[in-house]
Amino acid sequence: MGEFDLIERYFARKVRGRPSQASVALGPGDDCALLVPAPGQQLAVSSDMLVEGRHFLPQVNPADLGHKALAVNLSDLAAMGAAPLAFTLALALPPARAVDAAWLHAFSDGLLALADAHACPLVGGDTTAGPLTISITILGQVPAGQALRRYGAQPGDEVWVSGALGLARLALGVQRDEWTVPPELYPVAHRHLARPAPRLALGTALRGVASSALDVSDGLLGDLQHILRASGVGARMQVAAVLRTAALDGGDQSISRIPRERLLAATLAGGDDYELLFTAAAHRRDAVLRAASASGTPVSRIGTITAEPGLQLLDADGTALDARHYLGFDHFA
Amino acid sequence: MGEFDLIERYFARKVRGRPSQASVALGPGDDCALLVPAPGQQLAVSSDMLVEGRHFLPQVNPADLGHKALAVNLSDLAAMGAAPLAFTLALALPPARAVDAAWLHAFSDGLLALADAHACPLVGGDTTAGPLTISITILGQVPAGQALRRYGAQPGDEVWVSGALGLARLALGVQRDEWTVPPELYPVAHRHLARPAPRLALGTALRGVASSALDVSDGLLGDLQHILRASGVGARMQVAAVLRTAALDGGDQSISRIPRERLLAATLAGGDDYELLFTAAAHRRDAVLRAASASGTPVSRIGTITAEPGLQLLDADGTALDARHYLGFDHFA
Repeated sequence: MGEFDLIERYFARKVRGRPSQASVALGPGDDCALLVPAPGQQLAVSSDMLVEGRHFLPQVNPADLGHKALAVNLSDLAAMGAAPLAFTLALALPPARAVDAAWLHAFSDGLLALADAHACPLVGGDTTAGPLTISITILGQVPAGQALRRYGAQPGDEVWVSGALGLARLALGVQRDEWTVPPELYPVAHRHLARPAPRLALGTALRGVASSALDVSDGLLGDLQHILRASGVGARMQVAAVLRTAALDGGDQSISRIPRERLLAATLAGGDDYELLFTAAAHRRDAVLRAASASGTPVSRIGTITAEPGLQLLDADGTALDARHYLGFDHFA
Repeated sequence: MGEFDLIERYFARKVRGRPSQASVALGPGDDCALLVPAPGQQLAVSSDMLVEGRHFLPQVNPADLGHKALAVNLSDLAAMGAAPLAFTLALALPPARAVDAAWLHAFSDGLLALADAHACPLVGGDTTAGPLTISITILGQVPAGQALRRYGAQPGDEVWVSGALGLARLALGVQRDEWTVPPELYPVAHRHLARPAPRLALGTALRGVASSALDVSDGLLGDLQHILRASGVGARMQVAAVLRTAALDGGDQSISRIPRERLLAATLAGGDDYELLFTAAAHRRDAVLRAASASGTPVSRIGTITAEPGLQLLDADGTALDARHYLGFDHFA
């Protein structure tokens, strides 16, 4: 099957069958797609690349993979407070995958179902033979001057995070035979890992409310450092509040059975959470809670921005934990 | 070296050092880049993926590779009559490449020199470990309704192509030990293969003049078929005119020493030309020539659109050649 046929069969036809969107003047099939950004909007652009063996395992469910490949990009839009416009897909497929109709159908179904849910059509791309690699570029729009940036956190601002942290890392550890989790927890944790929900509604609701924001992809503390450095500030974090987020989806009982040190590492540094980490002035606390409520997204207050640089981790009893232990990629090694 | 350091050292710093562009509100370093399309413009988007071993050989000059990776995307903009706005780069690097400073400097130099030449800044992207894979998404803009499309060719329209066809394929054949070429021809042919020049100035000059257009990447006749199918027409092509384009850069003497059958295959089906193939009404011939002159781009008239579908190839004496022989990927096999 040639490249054109493959796009046509698994991706383009599904796109063409949808109700046309005013923002898409031309979809796949020409040298470029043509989009019509709304007046007064800035265009938000982000690209991610997922490589088999590094970002996902060969045996991953292809529908989950399609979902996640787009979800991580939508999460970047959410972190800017941008609304989705469209995306492109560049896909390298090994010969065996290129003729695996079941795999391609499942992958494109997972991908396009999430695209439909957020009115974010596939408008173009490329397919080629090669080691399985997925590169998506997402385009969104945000009113000029209203994007949520990484700088802007001020001393006294409160630090917030959406959803439940650490569950994706707990599921990954099970897959890697690093540990087990209570059986009733695994399906929930696995859903976090395989089907992250990009926080788009919260992101747009936080325009004009959050003083800084990003999405947690590499681990809470590591990503928080990006905000702290960009803003020239420090933070004092309440570890108990961070741990409690895991119970939001995991449930108190199941989470209480995870060894404390493992749960600390998973929530503070686990990665793959795709939750929004953001700051807001203390007097905007009600506005934050209204944005959370309006978008149907749980949020937790987990710390405070400080004028002095550096990261302090305080336990429930006020004792300090060593933040360096939870920074960087290899804390589980 | 972490991902952030790699982007910072080889790509982002060079971008930050440039004069800021009104169309880029925010470059690399946040969750998304922010662009400001001009009012009244549509946004043109295209993505390409290049995989080592398939689109280029491991021993390719990295500066050439950087140039070409962006050139093939800029060529897609040219084919729409769009002007460049910005691009993103997703890059998978094997461990040995990720620490090869000379390679990375040369690759980014080649990439960013072409980006600078077309005022098309790198605004974001992703790097990861993996088999060497380059995925670029290009963004451009074109006045609403003025994009050059693949449909629109009318019976009686003339078929045109820019530049010299076939030289890239002749150089590739030398690299693959399929044949030799006259020694004085190789540097010219190799430049076509390694450093294609995207025809952006011609593309914008053809707005309102060409009735259809695309860029020749897979071979003249195969790509012409896309125009014919999209427009519901056929074409009668003058083979002698197609062959003559090779001499525009290759020179009459050198080209005359290429066996006729090889030159036919290289010009009609060689691929990697990245020239513009377009149609225009016969009474717009002067407008085409003015667009060519204004953009400093040679163009050749190589055929005529017919109402009856199908592709006729006429030799200089009027005898017909079999077009099927030059269609499809494997005509050199």
